[in-house]
Amino acid sequence: MDGATPLTTDALVQLTAMLEPELQATNRAIVARMDSPVSLIPQLAAHLVAAGGKRLRPLLTLAAAKLCGYEGSRQVQLAACVEFIHTATLLHDDVVDESVLRRGYASANTVFGNKASVLVGDFLFARAFQLMVEDGSLEVLRILSAAAATIAEGEVLQLTTQNDLDTTEQKYFDVIRGKTAALFAAACEVGGVIAGRPAAQCAALAQFGMDLGMAFQLVDDALDYSAVQAELGKTVGDDFREGKLTYPVLLAIADADAQELEFWTRTIGAGEQNETDLGSALALMKKHNTTLRSLARAGAFVESACAALGVFPPSPMREALMDVARYTTARRF
Amino acid sequence: MDGATPLTTDALVQLTAMLEPELQATNRAIVARMDSPVSLIPQLAAHLVAAGGKRLRPLLTLAAAKLCGYEGSRQVQLAACVEFIHTATLLHDDVVDESVLRRGYASANTVFGNKASVLVGDFLFARAFQLMVEDGSLEVLRILSAAAATIAEGEVLQLTTQNDLDTTEQKYFDVIRGKTAALFAAACEVGGVIAGRPAAQCAALAQFGMDLGMAFQLVDDALDYSAVQAELGKTVGDDFREGKLTYPVLLAIADADAQELEFWTRTIGAGEQNETDLGSALALMKKHNTTLRSLARAGAFVESACAALGVFPPSPMREALMDVARYTTARRF
Repeated sequence: MDGATPLTTDALVQLTAMLEPELQATNRAIVARMDSPVSLIPQLAAHLVAAGGKRLRPLLTLAAAKLCGYEGSRQVQLAACVEFIHTATLLHDDVVDESVLRRGYASANTVFGNKASVLVGDFLFARAFQLMVEDGSLEVLRILSAAAATIAEGEVLQLTTQNDLDTTEQKYFDVIRGKTAALFAAACEVGGVIAGRPAAQCAALAQFGMDLGMAFQLVDDALDYSAVQAELGKTVGDDFREGKLTYPVLLAIADADAQELEFWTRTIGAGEQNETDLGSALALMKKHNTTLRSLARAGAFVESACAALGVFPPSPMREALMDVARYTTARRF
Repeated sequence: MDGATPLTTDALVQLTAMLEPELQATNRAIVARMDSPVSLIPQLAAHLVAAGGKRLRPLLTLAAAKLCGYEGSRQVQLAACVEFIHTATLLHDDVVDESVLRRGYASANTVFGNKASVLVGDFLFARAFQLMVEDGSLEVLRILSAAAATIAEGEVLQLTTQNDLDTTEQKYFDVIRGKTAALFAAACEVGGVIAGRPAAQCAALAQFGMDLGMAFQLVDDALDYSAVQAELGKTVGDDFREGKLTYPVLLAIADADAQELEFWTRTIGAGEQNETDLGSALALMKKHNTTLRSLARAGAFVESACAALGVFPPSPMREALMDVARYTTARRF
């Protein structure tokens, strides 16, 4: 797909450029507000900030506010909140997943230990709520506290489906709706809320974020079985090793013959893996065309996301957000 | 001290009896609101609820509200919030400390695994904020989100002082102020806030809770080197094994001769311990009278706590709260 959709692959760069001053203010707020007299906290937080990341979720808050014609400055602090909640979940995820890499760098738990990652995650989560309280909107607090609870529910559900070959597609979608899409939805909705937009427009923004998040996670899960490690910035096959029942695995299991089912039962169900198994898994994925089928499913969510923005009149920001959604399925693999 | 202060040892029982209907309503709220379609969440939370606990922190919210003549019902849900925040920190603490027992029962991380403990802790924390948002007071949200951030800071500070023999008394007090006293303070203050009491009375309640929390943790840290395991409901010597620089250790190190200092440097500083070391540590604690000296320090906080309540006219509830403070230093050891 390389080169086939040059415009959409630049979509995130384009959105970032359109929101440069707000994003820089958000980055300043992030650095300023992750500070603490307990020096390990900013040290560990800086490790994550230095590792970069696309700032996709805070960008959504900034973009939604701009799409709604918001002219104040509250979106900056709330975008920082969204990033703090995201960072807190990353820190806890890496402990739960025993990850070694995050965005191509050594993960915080590898450098600072699991204990520090758990506790600094807690700090960032609490700090996010302090920033929301400063902002003073109970509606924003309601949206983001509900998202935080839903994220945790999604993560716990993922834990209970791990190694469970009976996991349904429905359950997989429940997991990614919770662990990923809920925060995308909240990040978008908040932009409409501070702009004082009517409920239907706020709901449309939430729908856009939800669909975008679903597409994003579907592609992420597909890439875990297909991307080059260096490009992805993480180890290929993490999900396989952890026995996660992601979409490509569900597709491969649904189409498996008896011998293949035995393979998945041993490697994912029982978690018994040897060094040739990842290669076999990748071959089965290729055989059953799971990557393209995952991208097609993601594409349906992208269409729904773009349709949700139809309640807004055409504008450069609306097009930029739609391009970001379209870009999701054009990521390299 | 057994029997010397019969009235004060019954103080918590007495306070509980005075607040029986509110406490039962709080327990119902806790059970109702820890529910989730993801069944592992109520399962794990129920494990902690079944293990009991004194409900000391929610009792403080209920008592403070009653002391302030509050006649509504908001204290019930906010007391549940306080317990959720406390439970979330317990879940994460047990992961961080690698605890095996909690309140005499197998700890949640032992039964359900570290991953589930981290994630269900996150859920309870988020749910606490949802309940606060439902309550609708930004002032309450401000107090409890600040307490949550301070708790995390205290826990991280404790982590950085672990095995560090240069830890000062000041730093130890910073740790326990954060990890324990901040939530006691917030739990009390919230009771005054919902009763609409003037700032001075709310501050007095916060001061009472803060001092009570300091005394409580000092006694807890003393008990870790002196209590009978069965009475305490946890393993004696946990702090020793984890290399925590608690008050009794600081006292023993300050008074150590060269040979004793070598012992502490090896066992706490370097964390090199053999099976006879806990016995030696207990003998050194006895030699330097660290338990009684810790209790004396706690006693000073109890006095300060009781003095803080002087802004309120005498009443059965004021006396009951003061008795709970006095009871802190009368716990068996």
